[in-house]
Amino acid sequence: MQRETVRYDVTDGVAVLTLSRPDQLNAFTVQMADDLVAAFDEASADSTVGAIVVTGEGRAFCAGMDLSSEGNVFGLDETLEPTLTDLYERFDDPAIISGVRDTGGRVSLAIYRCPKPVIAAINGAAVGIGATMTLPMDFRLASEKARIGFVFGKLGIVPEAASSWFLPRVVGMQNALELVYSADIIDAATAKDMGLVRSVHPPEELLDAALALAHRFVDGRSPVATALARHMLYRNSAFASPVDAHRVDSLAMFYTSVGDGKEGVAAFLEKRPAEFTSTVPADLPDFLDETDAIR
Amino acid sequence: MQRETVRYDVTDGVAVLTLSRPDQLNAFTVQMADDLVAAFDEASADSTVGAIVVTGEGRAFCAGMDLSSEGNVFGLDETLEPTLTDLYERFDDPAIISGVRDTGGRVSLAIYRCPKPVIAAINGAAVGIGATMTLPMDFRLASEKARIGFVFGKLGIVPEAASSWFLPRVVGMQNALELVYSADIIDAATAKDMGLVRSVHPPEELLDAALALAHRFVDGRSPVATALARHMLYRNSAFASPVDAHRVDSLAMFYTSVGDGKEGVAAFLEKRPAEFTSTVPADLPDFLDETDAIR
Amino acid sequence: MQRETVRYDVTDGVAVLTLSRPDQLNAFTVQMADDLVAAFDEASADSTVGAIVVTGEGRAFCAGMDLSSEGNVFGLDETLEPTLTDLYERFDDPAIISGVRDTGGRVSLAIYRCPKPVIAAINGAAVGIGATMTLPMDFRLASEKARIGFVFGKLGIVPEAASSWFLPRVVGMQNALELVYSADIIDAATAKDMGLVRSVHPPEELLDAALALAHRFVDGRSPVATALARHMLYRNSAFASPVDAHRVDSLAMFYTSVGDGKEGVAAFLEKRPAEFTSTVPADLPDFLDETDAIR
Repeated sequence: MQRETVRYDVTDGVAVLTLSRPDQLNAFTVQMADDLVAAFDEASADSTVGAIVVTGEGRAFCAGMDLSSEGNVFGLDETLEPTLTDLYERFDDPAIISGVRDTGGRVSLAIYRCPKPVIAAINGAAVGIGATMTLPMDFRLASEKARIGFVFGKLGIVPEAASSWFLPRVVGMQNALELVYSADIIDAATAKDMGLVRSVHPPEELLDAALALAHRFVDGRSPVATALARHMLYRNSAFASPVDAHRVDSLAMFYTSVGDGKEGVAAFLEKRPAEFTSTVPADLPDFLDETDAIR
Repeated sequence: MQRETVRYDVTDGVAVLTLSRPDQLNAFTVQMADDLVAAFDEASADSTVGAIVVTGEGRAFCAGMDLSSEGNVFGLDETLEPTLTDLYERFDDPAIISGVRDTGGRVSLAIYRCPKPVIAAINGAAVGIGATMTLPMDFRLASEKARIGFVFGKLGIVPEAASSWFLPRVVGMQNALELVYSADIIDAATAKDMGLVRSVHPPEELLDAALALAHRFVDGRSPVATALARHMLYRNSAFASPVDAHRVDSLAMFYTSVGDGKEGVAAFLEKRPAEFTSTVPADLPDFLDETDAIR
Repeated sequence: MQRETVRYDVTDGVAVLTLSRPDQLNAFTVQMADDLVAAFDEASADSTVGAIVVTGEGRAFCAGMDLSSEGNVFGLDETLEPTLTDLYERFDDPAIISGVRDTGGRVSLAIYRCPKPVIAAINGAAVGIGATMTLPMDFRLASEKARIGFVFGKLGIVPEAASSWFLPRVVGMQNALELVYSADIIDAATAKDMGLVRSVHPPEELLDAALALAHRFVDGRSPVATALARHMLYRNSAFASPVDAHRVDSLAMFYTSVGDGKEGVAAFLEKRPAEFTSTVPADLPDFLDETDAIR
């Protein structure tokens, strides 16, 4: 399925999502948010997709919210006076979704619930939502030409897209605070030093590096085991106690060991490549959704 | 307002709090705790203050608890047998506050609830509570002469001031455990390598560096947006799920986008500096206090 | 007490646990899990033990689950269809313990509840459970010959032993995801760069380095203060709010300051070494177990 603002191409088990408004430096719109959510949900549901790479068409990754649109650029319903209670009791109410809930956050949550590795290939400017949308992605690979900025403070607004949850997990609290307070745009080397990006690449090698990394996570691997590992690293680490992590990973180990684990162990003992047969999401165990209730 | 043990000076929108018992190496007393809480609460409430720098007078930052005082140096009521239930049900009971609750923790919580960036300018020895009080500050800048030690273990006591919550967020768990178990006093370069301090400066340049950093966070910025960002980075990242972070940042984005965000976007489009008009705490949205109930 | 697969030797207040199936590269079995849990519980209960070092006999640390055993290598009861509810309501049910709960997780939780510093001396290959069992240990020291791999993905199973809770706390989220997804075996230098291991040592110096580190944490220290500090760093940092950390550390400070803290302060003032008299676990304060209920 091709969408208005996001190209979607699957090759050899890896989906490449390309932000595709190059003449606007891939500036983010409500349409792009909807397209990204749909693309991630499609990749999540497609058993032939093992990992996802996100990049930008042209010279930018995503230059931030498109501020050139008419009217309220954030798409909010200013007649409302939303409360925290509204965000709990009416979370899925269309009026709250379109009039109150942060658009970038809807994208971040689609990435968070995705059961497959996600890699950002930051080919150029990644500013505002262009920066925060990469945080729920598992890895940030950057071109030498990349520039990254959590510029919200200079616009009088706040970092969004659930970035306050993800950013300290990636760079630690002191770096997170400086990136946000300063609102500076930093280069790829600085981002690497801070631990924000995993690796820096010549521009012409970036996409291949991202694809090679994706294939390291896909080829010869169990899709169910990878999906469970992603789910566990984000959710279990946020539990108050490792006892809860043990409850969840016991179940994950149980269901993988009676599934792809049998083939994995057999292949290991027979010194041959494993041929895993599980598919995602079809073979994900039932207990997974319940883990979100653990606090 | 000048206090007994803490000087308080506001210049160009930045409050400098100076620990001021130089003949005692700024050793910490119950009076200093009260003065610090009052100073942070005053800076939090003063709309002309955009950021706070904390430093020490003379050659030390803070040499730790003043152990030279008469009687029980910790000010505790030894006739009590406090329980965890007491700390929940009688948290604000004066007998528990003065007789049981950790004095340094009262300072840390005043810093935690402060809606403005806080920078420690560690000019010399920062030992015991002198080290732990800097952890709820957002940044630690150190003089080349700084020495930092979580020395509690050598005194038969524990690290306090809520440091067990903050320290792993700044340096990771392995470093946190070594700093605490060893109780060693480390130099500025080692503290930098561990990620404990942000940057190391010649002694005569330290305060200017801290003030320059503060101004990067204040000049031309929206006080409400900065306050919300601080609140969110600490609180949202500790939630069990980014879905809760999304609820909070949706509200923060909503109220800033109908506030200073309008000027910020207009200024951006008109290629002129923004002139934000919000003040803190007057213009902080109502939902903020409710977020502390999210687990 | 000597056990079948784990040697247990106490010298000068430090217990050394040696994985001892050298002909099988110390491959992990249910017997080894039981022996490790027993050894950690014994060291936890032994007031003459101040810290614990874990290493491997021969050229490996632990080469992972012993896959050569007959039948179901994971020891699970495949006739069950366990649910998350089972893991809450029947956590201590023998049928769930032996048939469902992850074996490595039982070891990790024994380490987690241990009130003494724990140091891994990784002398060679640490693969699968050989890698994850080191994560709830406070420090990982590695021989130059060490190789570490979270290889589960290549076997079609998931990282276990509560590693999803510990690993991001040690190396950050981006590194954690790469270690798990890639399932690669990395060398000691790479592990050091990622923050996974604290320090790398020539093979013949590794155990001495681990023992020296242990003695820095034991000699002249208060066992109760160290136990409380360990408990607090892991548990308090996972609370949703530092206010809860303040409640716990207030009690920990209260009970240490009327205990070993009196001697510690007196010794400091008299410029002499402190002679602490507390013992662990006998003198641990009652409130400690209650902290696990804080979310």
